Amino acid sequence: MVASHTSDIESLELFSAAVGMIGAGQLARMTQRAAIDLGIRLEVLAVDEHAPAVLAGASWTRGRPDDRKAIFDLAERCDVITLDHELVPGDVLAELIAHGIRVIPEPSALMMAQDKLFARRALANAGLPTPPFAEVRNSADLTAFASSHGWPVVLKAATAGYDGRGVEIVGSMSDAEAVLSRGGVWLVEELVDLRMELSVLVAKRSSGDLATYPLIETVQIDGICRELVMPARVDPKLESEAIAVGLAAVALGEVSGIVAVELFVTSDGRVLVNEFAMRPHNSGHATFEGCVTSQFHNHLRAVLDWPLGDTDLKVPAVAMVNLLGSDIPGTAMASLPVALEDGAASVHLYGKPERSGRKIGHVTAVADTTDEALAIARRTARRMGGSLD
Amino acid sequence: MVASHTSDIESLELFSAAVGMIGAGQLARMTQRAAIDLGIRLEVLAVDEHAPAVLAGASWTRGRPDDRKAIFDLAERCDVITLDHELVPGDVLAELIAHGIRVIPEPSALMMAQDKLFARRALANAGLPTPPFAEVRNSADLTAFASSHGWPVVLKAATAGYDGRGVEIVGSMSDAEAVLSRGGVWLVEELVDLRMELSVLVAKRSSGDLATYPLIETVQIDGICRELVMPARVDPKLESEAIAVGLAAVALGEVSGIVAVELFVTSDGRVLVNEFAMRPHNSGHATFEGCVTSQFHNHLRAVLDWPLGDTDLKVPAVAMVNLLGSDIPGTAMASLPVALEDGAASVHLYGKPERSGRKIGHVTAVADTTDEALAIARRTARRMGGSLD
Repeated sequence: MVASHTSDIESLELFSAAVGMIGAGQLARMTQRAAIDLGIRLEVLAVDEHAPAVLAGASWTRGRPDDRKAIFDLAERCDVITLDHELVPGDVLAELIAHGIRVIPEPSALMMAQDKLFARRALANAGLPTPPFAEVRNSADLTAFASSHGWPVVLKAATAGYDGRGVEIVGSMSDAEAVLSRGGVWLVEELVDLRMELSVLVAKRSSGDLATYPLIETVQIDGICRELVMPARVDPKLESEAIAVGLAAVALGEVSGIVAVELFVTSDGRVLVNEFAMRPHNSGHATFEGCVTSQFHNHLRAVLDWPLGDTDLKVPAVAMVNLLGSDIPGTAMASLPVALEDGAASVHLYGKPERSGRKIGHVTAVADTTDEALAIARRTARRMGGSLD
Repeated sequence: MVASHTSDIESLELFSAAVGMIGAGQLARMTQRAAIDLGIRLEVLAVDEHAPAVLAGASWTRGRPDDRKAIFDLAERCDVITLDHELVPGDVLAELIAHGIRVIPEPSALMMAQDKLFARRALANAGLPTPPFAEVRNSADLTAFASSHGWPVVLKAATAGYDGRGVEIVGSMSDAEAVLSRGGVWLVEELVDLRMELSVLVAKRSSGDLATYPLIETVQIDGICRELVMPARVDPKLESEAIAVGLAAVALGEVSGIVAVELFVTSDGRVLVNEFAMRPHNSGHATFEGCVTSQFHNHLRAVLDWPLGDTDLKVPAVAMVNLLGSDIPGTAMASLPVALEDGAASVHLYGKPERSGRKIGHVTAVADTTDEALAIARRTARRMGGSLD
C-alpha cells in the first residue's frame, strides 16, 4: 500500500486536519479509529505495512522511530507530530521544533517518560511522594541502598523500558550484579508493599485547558497492565489524594496531549508516583466505551489544540482486560466467534501476530458495578484463550 | 492508494475475517471504524479514492455498484459481500450466490428495500398496516385513488429513491402528471397525518438469532433524517406495538444483517410501516455512543454469522443531529474547533465535500434525558453551520 496524499486543496475539504504519529502500534491503531470520527487524516511512521495502525487504514510513511529523514518527510504533510511510544530520540524532536514544526509531547516533557531517573528526581525535588530510590553507579550504591531499605529491591533501567522490560526484582547482590552487567543507567528502588495501583489520566491542550478522567484502578502483573476498572474502587479521600498527586505530577512538566501518571497505593495507604506516559495509555482503553470522550479522541483534540471533550464516565462502571497471546499463534483469532457469544463484551483486536504473553487486544465491558463489568470482560478474555493467571 | 491484499497466510494471523462492501459512503466509513475493533479487513467497492470509507482507510477496489467484474474480484478476497446502499443490481448479487459466494442481505430480502411497491404489497398481503396506496399505471389509477383518499397525495418512485429523492407531495392532477412524466414505476399513497416517525432497528444472523435495538424516534424533513433520540418518547403501549409491527415486517423476508423498519405514527395513534433499509441505517447512528454494541459492529457480526452483541442502551438517553452542508463549502470543517467547545457532544465527519443540504456528518450526545441530549447535539450542530430549520 502506498501512502496517499491528497493535494492540499482537496485536504481542505475532505480532512479537518492532519496528524503525524511516530509509531504505528495499537495506540496509533485506536487513534485511527478516533481520527475517522473527527475527519482527521492520521499518518503514521511505520516500519512496514503490517503495523497495527497501517492494517487499520492509517496513511503511513515507512521509517524507524529514529529515521530523521522519514520523520521530516512525515512532518511536512502534517499539522502536528505526536507519538505512540516514547522510544523516539529527543534530538530529532528538538530539531523538528527548531524548524517550526509543532511536536506534542514537547521533548522536555517527554523526558519525564523516557528517563525514569530524571522523572524521579523531578518528583522528589518538587516534594512529591515516590518510592525511595537511588541511582546505581556502582555496587557500593546498591549495597548502601539495600542496607537501609533491605532486600529484595527493584532495579529499573532509567531508559528504554516498557511493559515490564527493564524492571527486575532482585533478592541479592549477585542477582543484582547479573542485571547491572547488561549495562546502561539503572536506578534502585524499594519494593513497596502494594495495596493497589491507580492511574490518573489527563488530557491537556498546549494553550492550557486540562481535563481529568475519573480515577482508574489498574492491575499490573510482571509490569504489564492486565486489567482496569473505572471508577477506581477507593474511598473518596484516597480518590482525591490520588488525583491531587497525579495533577501535581503533571504540572511538573510543560506537557500536552494525553498524560498518564501511574500511582502506587501502599498497604499502609500512602500514594506514591511510579511513572509517566506521555501519550494515550493502556490504562485509558476503557474510555472508548465508558466515557463521553475517549482518550484517543482527546489526544487528537489536545495535540491540535482544539477544545477537549468531556472526560466523565457515561456509564456506572467500565472494566477492561488485556488479551495476552498464548503459546499457539492464531488461538485468539480462531476463538473470536465463540468469545463473542457473550454479547455484553466489546472485543478489540490489534492485528498483531500472536506470541506468548504479547498484548494482542483487549476486552471492555460496561455494567452497573465495576465487579460486574470486570466479570464480563474476564469471561470473554478467557474464551479468547487469554492467559489470565 | 493501491488496495493492499496481504497473503492468505498473513491474513489468518492479522485479520479475523474479510468483509466486502459494495459502496463506500458514510455507512461503509463507520463500518470501517467497527472493523478496526474486531480485527476485520473491510474492503469496499468505491468509485474513487475520495470516497468516505476509502479516506477512512478501508481497503478498496475501484468500481461502480453495477460493475460485475469488479464485484467478483472483490468477492474473491472476502468471506461475505454486503452493501452500504441498496442501489445494487439484484442480478449481480444472484450471480454471486450462484457461485457460492455469501451475500447479505439476500437479494430476495433486498427487494423489500429496493422496490417500494413490492414491499407495500408484501406488507399488505401479510395484513400489516401501511398507508393506503396503489400502483399508478396511468392517470385513471391516480384519479381513482385521489377521489377516494383526497388531494394532496404522495407519489413515490417504486425504485431508486433515497433521502427524499423520488418522493413528491402533489396537490393536483397536473402537478402529478409532471412528476409521472419522468417515467418509471410510481405508487401513490395517502398523505398521512403524522404525529411522529419511529425506527425499529434489528440485527439478524442468517442462522437465526435476532437482536432488537431500543425503539428510535426520528425526525425526517423533506425525506432526510434530521434528528433522532433513543429511547423514543412514547408510552409503553405504543412502544410495544411499534416494535411488534417492526418485527413482523422484518419476519416477512429472509433478511440478515442490520435491518431498519421505518414507521409512521399517525395523529390518531395508528402505527404504519413506511419502508425498509437492509443495511446500517441513519436512524442507528447514535448506537455508537448510546448502546452496548453499535449497529456497525453488529452488522459485521451478523453478516459473518458471528454471535450478536447486546443492543441495550448503556446510557439513559442519546440523541443525534445530522449535519447538512451549507451553501458555502468548507463551513462545517472550518467551524469544527469552535463547535467542539461544547465538550459533551461527539462529532462525526464523513469526509464528504460540503454541498448545500448534503449529509456531511452528524453529532451525537448522551445525557440523562432525551431532551437534554437533543439540546446538546443541536447546539453543536448549529455551531457547525448546520442548517437546522
